[in-house]
Amino acid sequence: ALRVNGFACKDPMAATPEDFFNAAMLDQPRDTKASKVRSNVTNINVINFPGLNTLGISLARIDYGPLGVNTPHIHPRATELLTVLEGTLYLGFVTSNPNRLFSKIVKKGDVFVFPKAMIHFQMNLAHDKPAAALSSLSSQNPGVISIANAVFGSKPPISDDVLATAFQVEKDLIHWLQSQFWGNTNY
Amino acid sequence: ALRVNGFACKDPMAATPEDFFNAAMLDQPRDTKASKVRSNVTNINVINFPGLNTLGISLARIDYGPLGVNTPHIHPRATELLTVLEGTLYLGFVTSNPNRLFSKIVKKGDVFVFPKAMIHFQMNLAHDKPAAALSSLSSQNPGVISIANAVFGSKPPISDDVLATAFQVEKDLIHWLQSQFWGNTNY
Amino acid sequence: ALRVNGFACKDPMAATPEDFFNAAMLDQPRDTKASKVRSNVTNINVINFPGLNTLGISLARIDYGPLGVNTPHIHPRATELLTVLEGTLYLGFVTSNPNRLFSKIVKKGDVFVFPKAMIHFQMNLAHDKPAAALSSLSSQNPGVISIANAVFGSKPPISDDVLATAFQVEKDLIHWLQSQFWGNTNY
Amino acid sequence: ALRVNGFACKDPMAATPEDFFNAAMLDQPRDTKASKVRSNVTNINVINFPGLNTLGISLARIDYGPLGVNTPHIHPRATELLTVLEGTLYLGFVTSNPNRLFSKIVKKGDVFVFPKAMIHFQMNLAHDKPAAALSSLSSQNPGVISIANAVFGSKPPISDDVLATAFQVEKDLIHWLQSQFWGNTNY
Amino acid sequence: ALRVNGFACKDPMAATPEDFFNAAMLDQPRDTKASKVRSNVTNINVINFPGLNTLGISLARIDYGPLGVNTPHIHPRATELLTVLEGTLYLGFVTSNPNRLFSKIVKKGDVFVFPKAMIHFQMNLAHDKPAAALSSLSSQNPGVISIANAVFGSKPPISDDVLATAFQVEKDLIHWLQSQFWGNTNY
Amino acid sequence: ALRVNGFACKDPMAATPEDFFNAAMLDQPRDTKASKVRSNVTNINVINFPGLNTLGISLARIDYGPLGVNTPHIHPRATELLTVLEGTLYLGFVTSNPNRLFSKIVKKGDVFVFPKAMIHFQMNLAHDKPAAALSSLSSQNPGVISIANAVFGSKPPISDDVLATAFQVEKDLIHWLQSQFWGNTNY
Repeated sequence: ALRVNGFACKDPMAATPEDFFNAAMLDQPRDTKASKVRSNVTNINVINFPGLNTLGISLARIDYGPLGVNTPHIHPRATELLTVLEGTLYLGFVTSNPNRLFSKIVKKGDVFVFPKAMIHFQMNLAHDKPAAALSSLSSQNPGVISIANAVFGSKPPISDDVLATAFQVEKDLIHWLQSQFWGNTNY
Repeated sequence: ALRVNGFACKDPMAATPEDFFNAAMLDQPRDTKASKVRSNVTNINVINFPGLNTLGISLARIDYGPLGVNTPHIHPRATELLTVLEGTLYLGFVTSNPNRLFSKIVKKGDVFVFPKAMIHFQMNLAHDKPAAALSSLSSQNPGVISIANAVFGSKPPISDDVLATAFQVEKDLIHWLQSQFWGNTNY
Repeated sequence: ALRVNGFACKDPMAATPEDFFNAAMLDQPRDTKASKVRSNVTNINVINFPGLNTLGISLARIDYGPLGVNTPHIHPRATELLTVLEGTLYLGFVTSNPNRLFSKIVKKGDVFVFPKAMIHFQMNLAHDKPAAALSSLSSQNPGVISIANAVFGSKPPISDDVLATAFQVEKDLIHWLQSQFWGNTNY
Repeated sequence: ALRVNGFACKDPMAATPEDFFNAAMLDQPRDTKASKVRSNVTNINVINFPGLNTLGISLARIDYGPLGVNTPHIHPRATELLTVLEGTLYLGFVTSNPNRLFSKIVKKGDVFVFPKAMIHFQMNLAHDKPAAALSSLSSQNPGVISIANAVFGSKPPISDDVLATAFQVEKDLIHWLQSQFWGNTNY
Repeated sequence: ALRVNGFACKDPMAATPEDFFNAAMLDQPRDTKASKVRSNVTNINVINFPGLNTLGISLARIDYGPLGVNTPHIHPRATELLTVLEGTLYLGFVTSNPNRLFSKIVKKGDVFVFPKAMIHFQMNLAHDKPAAALSSLSSQNPGVISIANAVFGSKPPISDDVLATAFQVEKDLIHWLQSQFWGNTNY
Repeated sequence: ALRVNGFACKDPMAATPEDFFNAAMLDQPRDTKASKVRSNVTNINVINFPGLNTLGISLARIDYGPLGVNTPHIHPRATELLTVLEGTLYLGFVTSNPNRLFSKIVKKGDVFVFPKAMIHFQMNLAHDKPAAALSSLSSQNPGVISIANAVFGSKPPISDDVLATAFQVEKDLIHWLQSQFWGNTNY
């Protein structure tokens, strides 16, 4: 017998092939028009695919509209290995101190790796057609922290004293940033 | 700074974006005609992409000709999360004792997970067109043990006494199986 | 206090020395005549000795009748360190690709290690007396996958298309192999 | 013998007590006036204390001038357990999606924990006196990613297209933010 | 969302900042007069601060009266990184075979590391004033085994045959040692 | 290919079956007369069997003369699972605070487990015949800290101030204990 989710959470002998299957439709483009940043992330992880529990892996399909951006974010518990499905992307990550940017323009069929917990991003360079990528993540529950959203859109908000000092700007600008709608764009 | 391959193996400050990139051409079908089992596995792991070292993840593209099979095998160090890129596959895995088979027919866009170190396989059900899958593996060096090849094609061979007893057949059949050419079909 | 099974599963203060003890009678030979392959494996792991939970170790006593075989199998979650208690064994393991066999003839008092998740086997070379071994395994729940049983004796069976292709034989032979009784021989 | 740095990197028998010692002067306040954000972080980790290698722990002393801020940042490889040495701090962290802020005002002698890889910050609430904290980190090499610095001060810079989209502001503002001096403030 | 205690043990959305906070009063000296060895250890770990669960870190404040001793002990699950808060200490640890002592005299602001599971101790060298230290431990549940207490004060006692042989002394001395009151002095 | 010692330290293709083999003669009793405590421990671990590296397991054969003792000790990096080969043993371990003794009398064929890093011991109860045990340890490099030897026989010695306080005895007794010859008895 093996130690996987259905087996951990119910009688192992009651598990079925369905416990290891997800009709994710990962071949289907998603809508990117409803997003302010013109991208859409479809996650297949332990939250919607319980059979992945304890197995240490998950997936995400990322769709980009024209000039769409998967904004700078962090996966606190996973490395991400991205394969370009369609289009041409500008992508990169920033190391911890010193803050060096490792960026590259990649095309269909290319692979790029974002090491665990580093800030990273992608952008569709085409202004007239969509792009898409399939990412593998080294955790069944990678988590995501979208930088702009976490910093300016947390509930409750971070004190404007902290943010004005951190970003070296006036509080008015902080207030303006905080007043925007910060839906989760890339989890 | 981060703890990845180039950084571990040479001066971290000398790393470049190329260290995190692989022009894998994962969008390109591979030839399956040269294979006795009509399949072809393209691995993108630490062996040909050193930047994955310590990062705990890798990829494989699997191409299947008509009725092609990715024969029963084991990854000793990884769970495999398979996404169907093209076609319809019959796939499954067998648990450790008791030996239950969890199998399913999956189609383009579907996802199926093979838990770590379990015997698993896939087969293209179409007799007239190819299929393809992209697999994510939870190790930068997953390894592969093709069952038939390891048992009947090891160098030097396993004793025919052991194999005749294990498979409950005559030694003549063991010899015949061992005399076949056992190239590696799915590593 | 410590973090072991009884302590995790009931009041730690209620644990007794019995929780850490198993009257395994590992000095006693087991019957090997009831087995088609003339061997018998006695496991002492978390399934019958709950106090091992979280402790990362378990045992197995293996008895071999004359020419008895512990058939090729895999422990998906453990390395096995075998000590010969009695007799002379031919044993070995096959690495992942390339499929190299590392085999040796070992005698009473010798030690041999089978690395984690590699296919391995042992055979008693004597045709007139028994042999025995004591194996240490690096997991409280090592699991076992007997190759022949898992491939030809799973319930439900693996498709004969897959197996005929994998083993490069006719389906009739696959059907014949599948029709045998495949009890678990070495878990 | 034990498995620590000196022992790994040179002859274990040549190790001395000095290998396990660091004259860190952690009782001494550091200057906070040279910092734009009025804080100063003194790290004691494997980079300047090699004996910590493989031992999974490190320290940081944080000094805050009046209204000084340890700006929002992430430790990609460590949980941080902060003890207030002097003064009163406003501190908090933001979870991954959804972006909830967990903040609190803490005083001398209090302890607060920032879970691994979450964005967190502290601020000295006093406008007329310094504050200080001693933080324990669950890695010998925790790393630090200061959000503002990594996003706006990386070398080379992240494309203004990405940042303008991510923060929903005009490129002029991005350029202005990028033109500031972004020294590392909290690694 | 993140994987911490409150979140694991109750509805994650019900967690509050208090779950990550402990009013430990670590700035306050503790009484050392009630202790036969003139020391007092205040632990802040998962037992009294549940929010630390899964986070891999904890703290201890150690107070020493004049000539007070934190007697030889072991943390079975943690490395300890000690910072001197006040006074001058003689401290050290003994490696596993061969039994080498690594000792040093350290003063306020100094840092010393005791590798995981090694026997270690500290003593206040001043006969007229107290000392104090703050220790970081690399586990939320480090455990402690005070050598003298565990060997001579266990309940029930270890057989005097074993102890007389181990310490190479007469049983009378063992009985005398066992008859003392062995409260836990340093957990 | 697999990730074991020979493979890590030299050309993997140059490894041979001998790398996984050790002629340990674990069936042979060892002399116990040369030992002050009438026991003798034979270790088979990564130090004398390099092929165990990274494999997480090792062995020890323990021989006991009449009334022989394997004195109280700790393995800092391993759980120990003991099988009695011959004779009758009194054995036990003491938990971390509170210091509870879990002891038992065990006979040939019995199994007992000592959880990781807990103080434990064994004694042959027979005054007229030897006993023996085979122990499995959950690390290729378990380490051993013999309590009496580490505390009273370290080089250089621990200060008599510390030890007199810890054991609540006069310094004269400490000096007498320290003056004995403390060879390593159970590593």
